[in-house]
Amino acid sequence: MSGSITGKNIRVSTWGESHGKALGCVIDGFPAGLDITEEDIQKFLDRRKPGTSTATTSRKEDDLVEILSGIFEGKTTGTPISLLVKNTSQRSADYSEIASYYRPGHADYGYDQKYGFRDYRGGGRSSGRETIGRVAAGAICSKLLNIMGVKVCAYTRSIGDVEIDYDKFDENTRLITPTAMPDADADKKAMALIEKAREEKDSLGGVVECRITGVPAGVGEPVFDKLDALLSQAIMSIGAVKAVEIGDGINASKIKGSENNDAFENNGSHITKKTNHSGGILGGMSDGSEIVIRAYFKPTPSIASTQETINNSGENITINIKGRHDPVVVPRAVVVVESMCALTILDLMISNITSTVDPIISFYKNK
Amino acid sequence: MSGSITGKNIRVSTWGESHGKALGCVIDGFPAGLDITEEDIQKFLDRRKPGTSTATTSRKEDDLVEILSGIFEGKTTGTPISLLVKNTSQRSADYSEIASYYRPGHADYGYDQKYGFRDYRGGGRSSGRETIGRVAAGAICSKLLNIMGVKVCAYTRSIGDVEIDYDKFDENTRLITPTAMPDADADKKAMALIEKAREEKDSLGGVVECRITGVPAGVGEPVFDKLDALLSQAIMSIGAVKAVEIGDGINASKIKGSENNDAFENNGSHITKKTNHSGGILGGMSDGSEIVIRAYFKPTPSIASTQETINNSGENITINIKGRHDPVVVPRAVVVVESMCALTILDLMISNITSTVDPIISFYKNK
Amino acid sequence: MSGSITGKNIRVSTWGESHGKALGCVIDGFPAGLDITEEDIQKFLDRRKPGTSTATTSRKEDDLVEILSGIFEGKTTGTPISLLVKNTSQRSADYSEIASYYRPGHADYGYDQKYGFRDYRGGGRSSGRETIGRVAAGAICSKLLNIMGVKVCAYTRSIGDVEIDYDKFDENTRLITPTAMPDADADKKAMALIEKAREEKDSLGGVVECRITGVPAGVGEPVFDKLDALLSQAIMSIGAVKAVEIGDGINASKIKGSENNDAFENNGSHITKKTNHSGGILGGMSDGSEIVIRAYFKPTPSIASTQETINNSGENITINIKGRHDPVVVPRAVVVVESMCALTILDLMISNITSTVDPIISFYKNK
Amino acid sequence: MSGSITGKNIRVSTWGESHGKALGCVIDGFPAGLDITEEDIQKFLDRRKPGTSTATTSRKEDDLVEILSGIFEGKTTGTPISLLVKNTSQRSADYSEIASYYRPGHADYGYDQKYGFRDYRGGGRSSGRETIGRVAAGAICSKLLNIMGVKVCAYTRSIGDVEIDYDKFDENTRLITPTAMPDADADKKAMALIEKAREEKDSLGGVVECRITGVPAGVGEPVFDKLDALLSQAIMSIGAVKAVEIGDGINASKIKGSENNDAFENNGSHITKKTNHSGGILGGMSDGSEIVIRAYFKPTPSIASTQETINNSGENITINIKGRHDPVVVPRAVVVVESMCALTILDLMISNITSTVDPIISFYKNK
Repeated sequence: MSGSITGKNIRVSTWGESHGKALGCVIDGFPAGLDITEEDIQKFLDRRKPGTSTATTSRKEDDLVEILSGIFEGKTTGTPISLLVKNTSQRSADYSEIASYYRPGHADYGYDQKYGFRDYRGGGRSSGRETIGRVAAGAICSKLLNIMGVKVCAYTRSIGDVEIDYDKFDENTRLITPTAMPDADADKKAMALIEKAREEKDSLGGVVECRITGVPAGVGEPVFDKLDALLSQAIMSIGAVKAVEIGDGINASKIKGSENNDAFENNGSHITKKTNHSGGILGGMSDGSEIVIRAYFKPTPSIASTQETINNSGENITINIKGRHDPVVVPRAVVVVESMCALTILDLMISNITSTVDPIISFYKNK
Repeated sequence: MSGSITGKNIRVSTWGESHGKALGCVIDGFPAGLDITEEDIQKFLDRRKPGTSTATTSRKEDDLVEILSGIFEGKTTGTPISLLVKNTSQRSADYSEIASYYRPGHADYGYDQKYGFRDYRGGGRSSGRETIGRVAAGAICSKLLNIMGVKVCAYTRSIGDVEIDYDKFDENTRLITPTAMPDADADKKAMALIEKAREEKDSLGGVVECRITGVPAGVGEPVFDKLDALLSQAIMSIGAVKAVEIGDGINASKIKGSENNDAFENNGSHITKKTNHSGGILGGMSDGSEIVIRAYFKPTPSIASTQETINNSGENITINIKGRHDPVVVPRAVVVVESMCALTILDLMISNITSTVDPIISFYKNK
Repeated sequence: MSGSITGKNIRVSTWGESHGKALGCVIDGFPAGLDITEEDIQKFLDRRKPGTSTATTSRKEDDLVEILSGIFEGKTTGTPISLLVKNTSQRSADYSEIASYYRPGHADYGYDQKYGFRDYRGGGRSSGRETIGRVAAGAICSKLLNIMGVKVCAYTRSIGDVEIDYDKFDENTRLITPTAMPDADADKKAMALIEKAREEKDSLGGVVECRITGVPAGVGEPVFDKLDALLSQAIMSIGAVKAVEIGDGINASKIKGSENNDAFENNGSHITKKTNHSGGILGGMSDGSEIVIRAYFKPTPSIASTQETINNSGENITINIKGRHDPVVVPRAVVVVESMCALTILDLMISNITSTVDPIISFYKNK
Repeated sequence: MSGSITGKNIRVSTWGESHGKALGCVIDGFPAGLDITEEDIQKFLDRRKPGTSTATTSRKEDDLVEILSGIFEGKTTGTPISLLVKNTSQRSADYSEIASYYRPGHADYGYDQKYGFRDYRGGGRSSGRETIGRVAAGAICSKLLNIMGVKVCAYTRSIGDVEIDYDKFDENTRLITPTAMPDADADKKAMALIEKAREEKDSLGGVVECRITGVPAGVGEPVFDKLDALLSQAIMSIGAVKAVEIGDGINASKIKGSENNDAFENNGSHITKKTNHSGGILGGMSDGSEIVIRAYFKPTPSIASTQETINNSGENITINIKGRHDPVVVPRAVVVVESMCALTILDLMISNITSTVDPIISFYKNK
């Protein structure tokens, strides 16, 4: 059964394995008339590239995107946009050993049980490289969202026990710190923690937070396709995410209604809420406030220290995973979270346009 | 855009408003040959009924299900199963006032912004009564899952700051305690807390936990339709849920890889994991261990104490919400969580059957 | 696998068996704000009712529709519209015999092979009564289309070898003739033919034609969801249809390009085509001309004369089908064809609105 | 709105324009474990290549397929299969003129009206080259169908007024005749007709017939996703098709029930039908007989003779289309029809496996 396609109006289909010839995506249903260049997409892809810092794997790849279809004379044509990134650094030798056993914390065992075998090279389809297609699609969606006045901004909120200080929050900082933290001090502390984990042949988890501004109230479809439900699917579908929160999230379950309810108010110029415990979503629809979502990532399962597991024959063994691995996936995952949020929001904002008969009737009256 | 249908093989469509004539669901694609009676479904619906205890609203409804189609001579026929529950207790007068303002913490404002107006009676479509359709569908899915050896068991894990003690865990207890807690002592403490909240004209949140056993490794589709991604959508689509966790969830983001990885082992009779930090899901597929998911519910937004908000004309006002309201939705939401998990798991288990060519080839060889 | 749901923006789900408690549909995603009454829907349902003439079965049913949800204060609310028609005339005794054998030309054998058993009462799910849900949904879609300036008009073009004369075409006539022909003379001839077929214990087929005006150029999605592709699915999904034509259809395959091409022209006031061999569809999109589609119906398979077949045990037998059967389904199928066209066109017209970025950007600019 | 994706279990997404960098498809959900090589796919693609005969355009392209993902060690992995064919022959100069006007019989006008502009090079997305993705996907589906005992065989039945003689039918002949006719004599006559049309600067239409054997009774989903409904969508979605017939098709509408009904019989070894007017489909499900479907193609709209039309500015003009054009698309469309049938049948055969609870229960019992 198909599972690599998402979205309703805009359908994004990703394909490709870590060590295959290439990876990419097809974006079907994107509206015509948006100016898009390979540079627009590359900028997003560069944010998920393995960096030069110790926070991320030393594997070097250019991950250059090629537009194969759907864009003509610099504009989207309304037909499927096919994007491709070639795999240029395929040191398959590093991975030959892992064919024989199941790495703890990885999808290896599930793939073999489901499909009878697996492309074991670098994790195959379950590799983080699969997100290249998501980020390429996210770049295009984000460009249209920006024109619509919507801003999607994700950043690292914490790594291990190092959390950012919101008083030091600077949005641009997240684009230059190796941890993608918007707080340079926290970044330094986190980098030290990462270095220590690497030395200990261990790994770390962390939290990515995403804030979306400019979404008017009413976006999201009641019941199963609620805004928070689809954001949760989108975020939880990213490898290594183990929890998702909207607004106050878990904390909301511990406080009282009188503390958690946000009062609506007319501040003279427009309707707003005095507080935003809801994280911008009520009843599955945007409420006009900033949308706040958090993704909790587990520590990288590929660690260099000795681990117990079983091999293909079902024998208990111990292993030492070799190869290039990020001690923490969070910094590179920031743009993936941002991309998945952009995809989801744009898709629901398009659905929202035809929620009432009036815009439908007037569109065709003006034809 | 449609948003009240979910599932791939089995598609469940819910309909109905709190104070309309009836509520129900249509289940399309359910396999033929399962014995189902109205009693099977009623048993589930009774678990979400307003109880006699102080934990839940005093509104009394029989919520009797009628099977209108899709079941013949006591068996599912493979064609759409239409289920209906009539609304018998429609004290609309209680709700006439709320037509004029937006209740904090509710979907009222979003509905008006999206659709231009709303069915304000008892929350209309955004009422918790919408879940009747989900639970009716969940009952049928659960019956088939049980035959397949899969058990889905949800219960209240905490209300406010009262958490269950796993040493006192008794699965049957959850079916008789008014809080749906599987620990009678915690239940008593939670009931006292609820009574206090009601007296204070306030409300409480809490946590529902769901455990699913008997799912072999490999269930779930890679990338967007991962088992945890679809479970998250399913759970977050329930009103009042603000966070979802799989396995160690948020805690996984704080510990190290060496602590979080679960070692596979062959215990002599079968493959298992020494620990279950993963909550039974790795790489978006079941890993053969118990699946553990938690839903965090915010406190009921309808509280009797005075609140600030705006009216339809955009004026700042204060309100006092009247009518019958649960001081905590968690006890009645337990069976909703269980139902949504059952739907999601069964649907993915059906998809999983044709993941390889062998069962397809042999099905038709034997024809 | 689900197969009783259709549409993308507006999803219609039909349910119910010929002799179950009721039949109906759920319409999810219909835009908010359309005035709809039960009378609007009843008018369409009355067009598919068994008539008083010899053209149709003598079975009498009121087929009264009830609106259960999705309409509040006379307007669609944007949430699922649930419609129900009770089965009041269930002479099941008539059908008990057919449980034991497979009627030629019917779905009986396929159902048993697929599902292991079937609801044999009156054809169960494969009965023409299933179309009640389609027609109810079609009534609502047609009402919105009319406001949008789109008219969908179906009628009987031929029964057996009696064809209408376009010189005598009168649109209102089709609503009063028992054959649904728009030509009163042809109607009389066709009625005589039907009477003869009934006397001979035989049945007839025929052709329904549907014309859709007011659709601007560009409606339909390239490739798989072409306007003609989705219309074909919609029409062929009606029981007894064996062929579908667009415009010149089959004849187009026999003539030359120079004869078949329609020249575009600017007639001073707007762009049009000098001829309409294309039937209003080019490259899968509307071309601005009238859309013309034809559905070819086979003769009713239930005939009173003796037929050969097999029984459930696989023995060769001869049968005589009893009960009430239309000697021709075409007159009652006209409104079904019209409804399926209305559903398909409206759904694609909604999709078409967001084909370019401009209406998306301006919708949110004006928020 | 997305329109370039089809299928339910196996979802095929095609992308690419006639003169873009490449065309291709992504096949998501194909079951794991099928042996597939590029040669398997190339064999199908070669059948739609412009030939050396006068029947088809003189444009030469290798149309070599590259597998980019989803196949590992020669087997499908269960993850998305990405296939790519580079455009090597891009004589864009030929097409620059057509940017300024709307070709009669083409999608040009619709594209401009829908999207505001179009990729005019060689028809862009509306070019017949779009079918490369369909045929590549069809090759893979056909390979699995063959193993399952299902054979899908399409051929040219007629071109203009030249029809094949079934007494001379030879299945292999269709693979070597330039017209794809299975009758060498008819092929010669058709080739003469084509040559004449070319000399007259005109073009021809024709009929492709497809026969599918080995499908047991019960395949197809009742109501909207009927086997014939989905086959009709699949076939009508091919450019230039204007009519679709199942079995006796149009003729069925002209005869009587006693003539059209096929008697079931037990011939001693198995259940069959004495005749096959139904074309192997009853009530939307396969009935166990050979499935017969016909696609009626209009004549190629690109003709060399002078035509009237309008230009982009809405002025009436006359044009002479230059460039390479098939005088008839039918021979190259045969493999496209075969591919679309293969896709549709395989997808529904997979759905059919889980129509009853028994195979679901036993699959997991055996785990």
